Amino acid sequence: MSEPNGRRVFLDASGSAPLSPRTREAFVAAIDEGWADPERLHSESRQARALLDGARESIAAVLGSPVERTLVVPTIGLAFDRVVGGIAATRGERGVIVASAIERRPLLRVAQRVASEVVTVPIDASGVIDLEEFRTSLDSDSVSLALVQHANQEIGTIQPLMEAHKATVSAGVPLVVDATASIGHVDPPQHGDALVADPADWGAPRGVAIAAFRAPTRFAPIPPMVIDKVNVPAALAAAVALEEREENRRAVARTLETLTCRLRDAAESVGETTVFRPTGPSLPHVATFACAKLDGEALASELDRRGFAVGSGSACTTEPSPQSHVWEALGVSGSGIVRIGLHPAITTADVEAFVVALGESVEAVRGFLPPR
Amino acid sequence: MSEPNGRRVFLDASGSAPLSPRTREAFVAAIDEGWADPERLHSESRQARALLDGARESIAAVLGSPVERTLVVPTIGLAFDRVVGGIAATRGERGVIVASAIERRPLLRVAQRVASEVVTVPIDASGVIDLEEFRTSLDSDSVSLALVQHANQEIGTIQPLMEAHKATVSAGVPLVVDATASIGHVDPPQHGDALVADPADWGAPRGVAIAAFRAPTRFAPIPPMVIDKVNVPAALAAAVALEEREENRRAVARTLETLTCRLRDAAESVGETTVFRPTGPSLPHVATFACAKLDGEALASELDRRGFAVGSGSACTTEPSPQSHVWEALGVSGSGIVRIGLHPAITTADVEAFVVALGESVEAVRGFLPPR
Repeated sequence: MSEPNGRRVFLDASGSAPLSPRTREAFVAAIDEGWADPERLHSESRQARALLDGARESIAAVLGSPVERTLVVPTIGLAFDRVVGGIAATRGERGVIVASAIERRPLLRVAQRVASEVVTVPIDASGVIDLEEFRTSLDSDSVSLALVQHANQEIGTIQPLMEAHKATVSAGVPLVVDATASIGHVDPPQHGDALVADPADWGAPRGVAIAAFRAPTRFAPIPPMVIDKVNVPAALAAAVALEEREENRRAVARTLETLTCRLRDAAESVGETTVFRPTGPSLPHVATFACAKLDGEALASELDRRGFAVGSGSACTTEPSPQSHVWEALGVSGSGIVRIGLHPAITTADVEAFVVALGESVEAVRGFLPPR
Repeated sequence: MSEPNGRRVFLDASGSAPLSPRTREAFVAAIDEGWADPERLHSESRQARALLDGARESIAAVLGSPVERTLVVPTIGLAFDRVVGGIAATRGERGVIVASAIERRPLLRVAQRVASEVVTVPIDASGVIDLEEFRTSLDSDSVSLALVQHANQEIGTIQPLMEAHKATVSAGVPLVVDATASIGHVDPPQHGDALVADPADWGAPRGVAIAAFRAPTRFAPIPPMVIDKVNVPAALAAAVALEEREENRRAVARTLETLTCRLRDAAESVGETTVFRPTGPSLPHVATFACAKLDGEALASELDRRGFAVGSGSACTTEPSPQSHVWEALGVSGSGIVRIGLHPAITTADVEAFVVALGESVEAVRGFLPPR
């Protein structure tokens, strides 16, 4: 990897980030101590189970869900299945799922598989769900459950979950909260009947996901795929990473908020950009903008050559559509989208260096400068 | 953990085992080098993708499947889904799946979900599928696919895949081979149209599973759960662990075969035991026996106290039935089942120490000796 200034700056920390030294140490120790199948009877297994139980307890405490209703599963997709499928199975013939228009695509796909119909509720220009329309959509006997994300991983907007939950409670509909982009960055959601969380988003290694139900939400446990054992080292690392994030969260958030503001201003100053500026509560570490008339991939590559990793609209090679459905829902035709996710180790100097590189890269891609 | 002789002896190495030093080293290096999402555009991502591609190529070479048809997925359950669901989806209205009676339960569950009917084919006293009955079951226009495992993880029996495949080819039915208990222990299966493999069974950490299709098997790719990224460090560790196993496989197998013979003889000599003795090809590292009139869990606990971890029939706390369907299919009422899986680091001294402990433990559980 090219490191022009002696160091790579990773600004694509949503869904993955380098492990912190403390998380890495805990993970490696757990590889040695927790490799066994936690469901057998011998000492190796009991030791793995004890590590898993501890991790689960610690994560449940942060999420505010009862530990026995906090499930550690192998992947986010399986966590979505558990929560959406598990709750829908208790709701009889009701076949409609109500969802905000900017839920994650894989979650919407699970909803489409489980439901006879998925009704999407629009968002306003700052990415907030239309609560009036949400209430109207819930007003039907055929609604099985509602999906409202806690925060959006592309634009950072935090949804008004208290109001959304009031509406679902009054309609007698369970509310599933996708918290895969928010845990470890802001206060965990206080409202909702079940949630899904993604440890890799808070700085843990890949290998586990969390499905948590609040009492007294009814859910039919999906028949466990007995063969899919829990990844104990990943679970332990998830707990330690979350603990670390929670300890410093507010201070880190204040710093990152300043940095994302700086990034938004800088993005605006390069010209012909649409900078997303949340008007209400939002994730402190996410900034996103679209550079009109620029190829997002070319810009990301140019930045990469200069030592900076950013997310780009079409960066996910397996997503069929390069167009972001989130920007579409905002009513913005986003081309040349740059998504920035700051992890806690990012410094002001990193961001200032990025601001310089961004200006240079935009110029280079516009063809005024030869690419470096 | 109690270690009466200064060292624990782990004899439950099927589906999990301590990492070898070489695999551990590769895993930890890949945690540092391959933590990024392999599907984005920046250097960190490209580096992760390069590690993943290398791992996939190396595993595909051992399995004898085209690399572009060798999929790395997060769990065995998802690999079963991919292979069984993916092939069944191309088979139109045909709704019957033909399976040996001793396929793994989670695989049978996937088959039951996908098929209108699952026809099971009995096995003989040495655990081998009844080929005559298998051919008869295939002789119908409604057969979607057939499932025959390569080797059984409980009793070690290797199935006659060449004959089974001849039968499925002549019936025009795809053959799916569950190789989750055999890869890394014996020659990979030469016959079949698709296979599933479990790296954790060959000494890799948990986190990935393999679904491989041989050309020209038709399969409908299950819509990928885009959010479930591949665990790159686990994939790399899987490749390195397999490479290591393959290098020494034949020599290790000869040693382990001697040790499993010794274990079977010793088990027989403790009295009132039914020792499973495969009469044809079988896994070199697996030995299993049932101690009549003994509680399997009590025996396993007694052995554990003496420093030896073994598998017991009801050891899997999440399996609903403590009775093994494999022993049932053999026509043996197995109570007090002890399953032994030897990993390559197990020595003759370990086995001799176990033989002594087994005798003592059986006596203790029978009540002749106070438990230590």
